[in-house]
Amino acid sequence: MLLENIKSPADVKKLDAASLENLAVEVRGTLIEKLSKHGGHVGPNLGMVEATIALHYVFESPKDKIVYDVSHQSYAHKMLTGRAAAFLDESKYDDVTGYTEPCESEHDQFMIGHTSTSVSLALGLATARDIKGESGNVIAVIGDGSLSGGEAFEGLDNAGEYATNFIVVVNDNEMSIAENHGGLYGSLAELRASQGKSENNYFKSLGFEYLYVEQGNDIQTLIAAFNKVKDSKKPVVVHIHTLKGKGLSFAEQNKEAYHWSIPFDAKTGYQDWGDGESWGGILGDYLMKKIKADPKVVVIHSAVPAGIGFFEPQRKEAGKQFIDVGIAEEHAVALASGLAKGGAKPIYSTHSTFIQRTYDQLSQDLCANNNPATLLITMSGADGMNDTTHLCIFDIAMMVNIPNLAYLCPTCVEEAKAMMDYAVDQVQCPMAVRIPNGVAHRDVAFDTDYSKVTYKVDKEGSKVAIIALGDFYQRGIAVAAELAKQGINATIINPRFASGVDEELLESLKANHQVVVTLENGVTAGGFGEKIAAFYGPSSMKVLVKGLKKEFYDKVSFADLCHRNRLNPDQITEDVLAAL
Amino acid sequence: MLLENIKSPADVKKLDAASLENLAVEVRGTLIEKLSKHGGHVGPNLGMVEATIALHYVFESPKDKIVYDVSHQSYAHKMLTGRAAAFLDESKYDDVTGYTEPCESEHDQFMIGHTSTSVSLALGLATARDIKGESGNVIAVIGDGSLSGGEAFEGLDNAGEYATNFIVVVNDNEMSIAENHGGLYGSLAELRASQGKSENNYFKSLGFEYLYVEQGNDIQTLIAAFNKVKDSKKPVVVHIHTLKGKGLSFAEQNKEAYHWSIPFDAKTGYQDWGDGESWGGILGDYLMKKIKADPKVVVIHSAVPAGIGFFEPQRKEAGKQFIDVGIAEEHAVALASGLAKGGAKPIYSTHSTFIQRTYDQLSQDLCANNNPATLLITMSGADGMNDTTHLCIFDIAMMVNIPNLAYLCPTCVEEAKAMMDYAVDQVQCPMAVRIPNGVAHRDVAFDTDYSKVTYKVDKEGSKVAIIALGDFYQRGIAVAAELAKQGINATIINPRFASGVDEELLESLKANHQVVVTLENGVTAGGFGEKIAAFYGPSSMKVLVKGLKKEFYDKVSFADLCHRNRLNPDQITEDVLAAL
Repeated sequence: MLLENIKSPADVKKLDAASLENLAVEVRGTLIEKLSKHGGHVGPNLGMVEATIALHYVFESPKDKIVYDVSHQSYAHKMLTGRAAAFLDESKYDDVTGYTEPCESEHDQFMIGHTSTSVSLALGLATARDIKGESGNVIAVIGDGSLSGGEAFEGLDNAGEYATNFIVVVNDNEMSIAENHGGLYGSLAELRASQGKSENNYFKSLGFEYLYVEQGNDIQTLIAAFNKVKDSKKPVVVHIHTLKGKGLSFAEQNKEAYHWSIPFDAKTGYQDWGDGESWGGILGDYLMKKIKADPKVVVIHSAVPAGIGFFEPQRKEAGKQFIDVGIAEEHAVALASGLAKGGAKPIYSTHSTFIQRTYDQLSQDLCANNNPATLLITMSGADGMNDTTHLCIFDIAMMVNIPNLAYLCPTCVEEAKAMMDYAVDQVQCPMAVRIPNGVAHRDVAFDTDYSKVTYKVDKEGSKVAIIALGDFYQRGIAVAAELAKQGINATIINPRFASGVDEELLESLKANHQVVVTLENGVTAGGFGEKIAAFYGPSSMKVLVKGLKKEFYDKVSFADLCHRNRLNPDQITEDVLAAL
Repeated sequence: MLLENIKSPADVKKLDAASLENLAVEVRGTLIEKLSKHGGHVGPNLGMVEATIALHYVFESPKDKIVYDVSHQSYAHKMLTGRAAAFLDESKYDDVTGYTEPCESEHDQFMIGHTSTSVSLALGLATARDIKGESGNVIAVIGDGSLSGGEAFEGLDNAGEYATNFIVVVNDNEMSIAENHGGLYGSLAELRASQGKSENNYFKSLGFEYLYVEQGNDIQTLIAAFNKVKDSKKPVVVHIHTLKGKGLSFAEQNKEAYHWSIPFDAKTGYQDWGDGESWGGILGDYLMKKIKADPKVVVIHSAVPAGIGFFEPQRKEAGKQFIDVGIAEEHAVALASGLAKGGAKPIYSTHSTFIQRTYDQLSQDLCANNNPATLLITMSGADGMNDTTHLCIFDIAMMVNIPNLAYLCPTCVEEAKAMMDYAVDQVQCPMAVRIPNGVAHRDVAFDTDYSKVTYKVDKEGSKVAIIALGDFYQRGIAVAAELAKQGINATIINPRFASGVDEELLESLKANHQVVVTLENGVTAGGFGEKIAAFYGPSSMKVLVKGLKKEFYDKVSFADLCHRNRLNPDQITEDVLAAL
């Protein structure tokens, strides 16, 4: 196998044209085997095999620096930069992450996982190169889908006025995660149709030189194009047209389903998603009902509509009441604010890790205007995605310190529905609902009114009060059970609101409680429990704030995280007993 | 006077062409008089007089909805929508805010103060209109400078694929706050030079129809243009070329100095900035010295370089070691991360209110990568800008809950310099320094090492410990003085780090202290003091967390804020005594 002998990009450069073709076949086959067994980003990697080989053939990494946007397409890059074993040897599959990672290799410049950042990051490298009087090429690789993000625009616009070497490879596979959205994609289509000759050229309008490559999966064509721009002294875009999922028929045909995949049958493409309940399905059904019941409801998503169970049929069915804005979270929040101001009922949903894109829009565009939009923050908590760049543990701390925003944390599906029902129809303030990873049910009646920050006492006890937020409610119940074994009849409280303190209730606990323990599925720094601690600060109530220590955890399992942070019911019980 | 009889836009529509011209003269004269006496945004308002009159002549606000970006150019709009008295009558000057404000008028759609948001917010209104089957025009007004912000791009890109009425008026005065930066501005210049005929058209590349108006300060030309696009069924950009500061010679000539101004002499333009020290001047001198001493230092700003004392001469002097990225805070942070990774020493500075644009870039692009860039967060605290949209009280809560970031809060100029010196040269992690509004000096020696979160005990006492962060240090001293009168010898601590807890020191306080009081110039929710409260939660130490309650304060004076939040030394002392 050629691949086994590629220890660094220098080994790629030694290959002749035929061998490069063979290498591509090997890389693609290896990708398919690992992806089918392990899961991961299928389409983006299969589409970039030839371009990655050509990049490493032409440029000299790490002297020349390549920055991959999102870096979910960097698997071939990893194979060609000394990490092939992590793809060839099943026992080593987890030796590498699914994104670029400077700890793994000098060929990886940044840890990246969110979209639309590569141009700015790479421009920093190019500017450092120039300031230090060094030489070398800097190449940002960015997909067409990522171009819709504002950060990418800001980077391109700034780069467009530099007079220096800066190469942007636009990997145009005509897809975002779902289909692309934005007027820009009309002019990209014109560029493809005209072989790059259309006058309507976004990149040129930002000051870039421009080169179009129709055969974005042909190694020799790509090598010629990259050689043309190598050592360019001006910012230049190389627009390559590639096929997402290339080489795997079902991934070529159903690009959205194989953008990222769990392990699948390499022959048939069968993905065993199981038949259990998922929040995607639950939200999809719920939101579609809302849409049908009320023509003013508008569901907004930013490029990952599958996260709320909106696949092609649902999107079609929803018609104008569903808007995918593309990867444009800032715009999505402002759009929702405008919709609410205009009397519609917008529901914007995105994953916890991606709402991070919108702090200022939440604060200024939405909350300072107090427009009653609804946000659904999905995949929240430490028990889901665990890549450093996709941790969903910071949303509470980011959102609850913004005035006017009510952040509701349901303990189960039924409570989530009650909260969403209330949030969508009220006109008092912006409301967000934190949708966890796990699906829990509770067979109790839930309030229909969430107009005021009030915690719910589910069981009255004494001595110890457990305030268990959202999906950590069940953990609170488990702690109570442990405490019961020690003869302590703990009070159990469902606070519902992460965003405020029920002062009256907390005050009342002082009468017959000595310790309050708060539980939250996220970092405690800036989060829910610290506010309870501050409330009780001047009193003699003891408070234990339980959640995750502020840290960029890297692929740590949920079980490990709980153990490390003393979140297991026995550990919590131990700490409560110590405080008593 | 015509203006006195303009009670609503309907009154504008009654005027003939000559009267409209006279109205413009009156509006401009009134603006100059109020601005010279009161201060405010000079250039943006003077440039938009004719366009505002034409907008209200052609469109029918509030049925037609106009959304002004930043809304710092909305003074003429306010005059024509029933609020002329607030400009004509000096005693009523403060009856209106400097931005659009829905509480003031049904003609104001949103409270806006940050840039680049109008397109998204307006698109929300347009979409709500369509969903509800209503009619009317929606118009977003945006300046050329604001186009560099990613949110504006995201909005334009999304709007470009709508098939509905949506009008974007691009007010091109060839200026941001300082000069424009970005490749985009090259193509805007081409559009101006070609009377809109250049093929290199950013707006068309995003799917917009396009109309160019060279005479952007001519009412009849503008009326004709707006009539042309009125009731358009497609998104269209009307690109108007205006003169910033029109009618005031010194404002036309020195656009940056009169973008916003304190009161000035209407004849000469003289602005009495006083001769006291300012952080602008201090930072300007400091950063220029750094630049000269070390060729690797790169100072970055996003469009308000005067905030760090970088005016035209300084910018020229700094050469390649100064980068103004335009209004593009997200890019600025990512660029800084790239520069640090590449071995340069980037220092990015922006105001506290604008760093809000970059939560995700701080977290992902900078801190997850742990690149040692330096950030200077200026104008921080409640004693500076007090418009709701420009509050500088949320930065601690936003930043200190992000892992890896050290947020240093100096108590005075000398300590700030010690911290900046350390931050710029270290390579351990990203570091931010919180630059307050007030200039204080302390004649003591400061540490040169800030590698570890350690608080500094400045005076050892007992019973009460005062942990006074940053510019609230002097307030802590005042509290200690009050407590001394009560016979309490309080410990005084300068924590230096807003971003971490010195557990060892806090632990040691338990021996002979009963109450700890924390002071911070920002909202307490998510901020510094809550972490101290959480640390002491399981112990019997009492903690008072002092700062501002989470709220969107609106033009509340600092004295009032302190009183309301019980931050005056006597109030704090009272609360401490109550807790003892």
